[in-house]
Amino acid sequence: MEFGKNNTPFREDEFAQRLVSTKRAMEAAGLDVLIVCDPANMNYLTGYDGWSFYVHQAVIVAQDLDQPLWVGRNQDVNGAHLTTILSEENVIGYADEYVQSLTRHPMQVVASTIAERGLGSGRIGVEADSYYFTARAQAVLADELPDAVFSDAGVLVNWLRCVKSDAEIALIRQAARITERIMQRAVDLIDVGVPQSEVAAAILETGVRGIPGEGGYGGDYPAIMPLMPSGVGTSCPHITWRDEPFLAQTGTTVEIAGVRHRYHAPMSRTVYLGTPPQKMLDAAKIVDEGIDAGLAAARPGATAHDVYAAWSGVIARHGIFKESRCGYSFGLNYPPDWGERTLSLRAGDQTVLQPNMTIHFMPGLWLDDWGIEISEPIRITQSGVEQFCTFSRELVVK
Amino acid sequence: MEFGKNNTPFREDEFAQRLVSTKRAMEAAGLDVLIVCDPANMNYLTGYDGWSFYVHQAVIVAQDLDQPLWVGRNQDVNGAHLTTILSEENVIGYADEYVQSLTRHPMQVVASTIAERGLGSGRIGVEADSYYFTARAQAVLADELPDAVFSDAGVLVNWLRCVKSDAEIALIRQAARITERIMQRAVDLIDVGVPQSEVAAAILETGVRGIPGEGGYGGDYPAIMPLMPSGVGTSCPHITWRDEPFLAQTGTTVEIAGVRHRYHAPMSRTVYLGTPPQKMLDAAKIVDEGIDAGLAAARPGATAHDVYAAWSGVIARHGIFKESRCGYSFGLNYPPDWGERTLSLRAGDQTVLQPNMTIHFMPGLWLDDWGIEISEPIRITQSGVEQFCTFSRELVVK
Repeated sequence: MEFGKNNTPFREDEFAQRLVSTKRAMEAAGLDVLIVCDPANMNYLTGYDGWSFYVHQAVIVAQDLDQPLWVGRNQDVNGAHLTTILSEENVIGYADEYVQSLTRHPMQVVASTIAERGLGSGRIGVEADSYYFTARAQAVLADELPDAVFSDAGVLVNWLRCVKSDAEIALIRQAARITERIMQRAVDLIDVGVPQSEVAAAILETGVRGIPGEGGYGGDYPAIMPLMPSGVGTSCPHITWRDEPFLAQTGTTVEIAGVRHRYHAPMSRTVYLGTPPQKMLDAAKIVDEGIDAGLAAARPGATAHDVYAAWSGVIARHGIFKESRCGYSFGLNYPPDWGERTLSLRAGDQTVLQPNMTIHFMPGLWLDDWGIEISEPIRITQSGVEQFCTFSRELVVK
Repeated sequence: MEFGKNNTPFREDEFAQRLVSTKRAMEAAGLDVLIVCDPANMNYLTGYDGWSFYVHQAVIVAQDLDQPLWVGRNQDVNGAHLTTILSEENVIGYADEYVQSLTRHPMQVVASTIAERGLGSGRIGVEADSYYFTARAQAVLADELPDAVFSDAGVLVNWLRCVKSDAEIALIRQAARITERIMQRAVDLIDVGVPQSEVAAAILETGVRGIPGEGGYGGDYPAIMPLMPSGVGTSCPHITWRDEPFLAQTGTTVEIAGVRHRYHAPMSRTVYLGTPPQKMLDAAKIVDEGIDAGLAAARPGATAHDVYAAWSGVIARHGIFKESRCGYSFGLNYPPDWGERTLSLRAGDQTVLQPNMTIHFMPGLWLDDWGIEISEPIRITQSGVEQFCTFSRELVVK
């Protein structure tokens, strides 16, 4: 896939469709204006792609405006011209004196941009619990736009992202080829005496290098760094690597994602060096059986809860109870998470599955001092499930 | 350097000192309690290290408590036991049903933890503009603790981090050895026809692999991904790599950091493939001259403004005006930024430089359709400046 003439991986009409859907959802929520600060949502609506989310920035969607507005640091205006579909006049920069200042705040510029377009007394939605939208950002907006009525729009745009277009699915499939390569490299390298950092280095290298050769393509950075806790660390799913070597008679869980144009395909496997204890062999079988049951339950019309119930029914028969969710929606994202914060495969989540939803089915078992993780990225099809990756689910024993 | 018995790179008494300083700063700000959500500050106060900041979590410091409290997801409790100096009873987990839920919020658990310790009617500070502390987090806290008086503690802990201990400086020096290796690898690889993603892959691989051999050590992940805009992209400092190959007669700016136990040593250089236009050669000389002037001005007692003024005086003599800051404090960090959001080298910043402050002196020039970046990570010494890295500042021409 090549960048289109518009320098994004998508056609202009796909962005137009996303905007229409967003405005429709805003209307249902009673919103005239939506301030979008989640970098993935900013990308989704405009194409914007840059590592600039460490300063405040926003995309503003208004019912009365034909295009969204991008507001960011002056330094990043050129990047917005280069990576978005927006017309030049819809890209607004703020001076560097607003950056990390005690006396000025970038949300003052977002507010004045809204006010200048006559939208300052409207009903304005914010993504109140999204990454990078701080308590102070909300306070400044409220101060600067006293006539506006603010409300929490929640993850309104994230819900739209939940069902992928075919063009998005094509990118995830490309990412999945990278995922398989990364996992194979990790499995090949993990061995007694090899420093954990060396394997992490190889994982990142393989992921960003992507698919070599004719018809190949590069990879992008993952929204979560390689997670590969080892030994007692396997009871802690989110610790990263250390200098220490992998030890004999220990397990290592590897959670990684190939990424293409910010679209992820996450997957996990578990490696054991030595002769696995019976409890781990048993757990691997149970997880495999649980995945089969979950995948069989996943289809259009079923709920997220149904898939969770199928999985937890299997492990309950083996006397295991696991309170945490066993999956979530994934796709386009930036650090700190490749999950979309919408549907979760867990008790009570009544989200109805639809074709082209993409879910990381992630039935890890983390116990007192060890854990096992075997997971699959899947797509809901017209009748069931497509598995993005082809990679043996067995516990890898070396 | 090895992990101490406490499993962090620091001695227990260093954490004790950090806590004393934090409580003193809280007292000056009239605070009984401080809720810390910035992952770097959480690490600074407790040692906590994990990629779990994509869910809400906090460290609570109270004048009346001997140790901070860590509150996070149940799944991450084992990670907190493994990586922090905290006693078991000071690590509090919340159930998975609080994660990305529409009906529950993790800050309810933070609030109840505070209330249960009799601190619910105190003066509570929050880091209102810090990453990962959302508008909703603040709203939930306010709802759950109606008797508390909340105020914005700003970057109170970040300011304490601004002056490093010798143990922290030792880690940054280790990171700087990795930085030099990364930059050399990048400079060696960038060439006409080489895909950008291949160089990015090598940068990440080199950084995480670290220093090989006897006395070597592994690297950690950077808080900012490799930035290497090329061609017209050099006018956009924060765009990341693409598949496209490097082209003849274009410049590429490379901004990277070696990292050791979350401590960074950031640096930038510029590479030109072909015969550089005179304006770029001129700019490289001006930047070099400006760095010398800035470094000469940087010493204890000088202000951040003074260093900026020395730099901007040089470029002004050459007819260049640059509004953006030319440096910032760096050190311990997590994505999305290795900067500390405290002192900036810019007009009007009256922060007085002190020994063991660490600053990324970053006098980039980004112009209409091209840019140049040559930067140095430095430490303020008793009398002047230590440059962490040894790497020619010349424009690299290949």
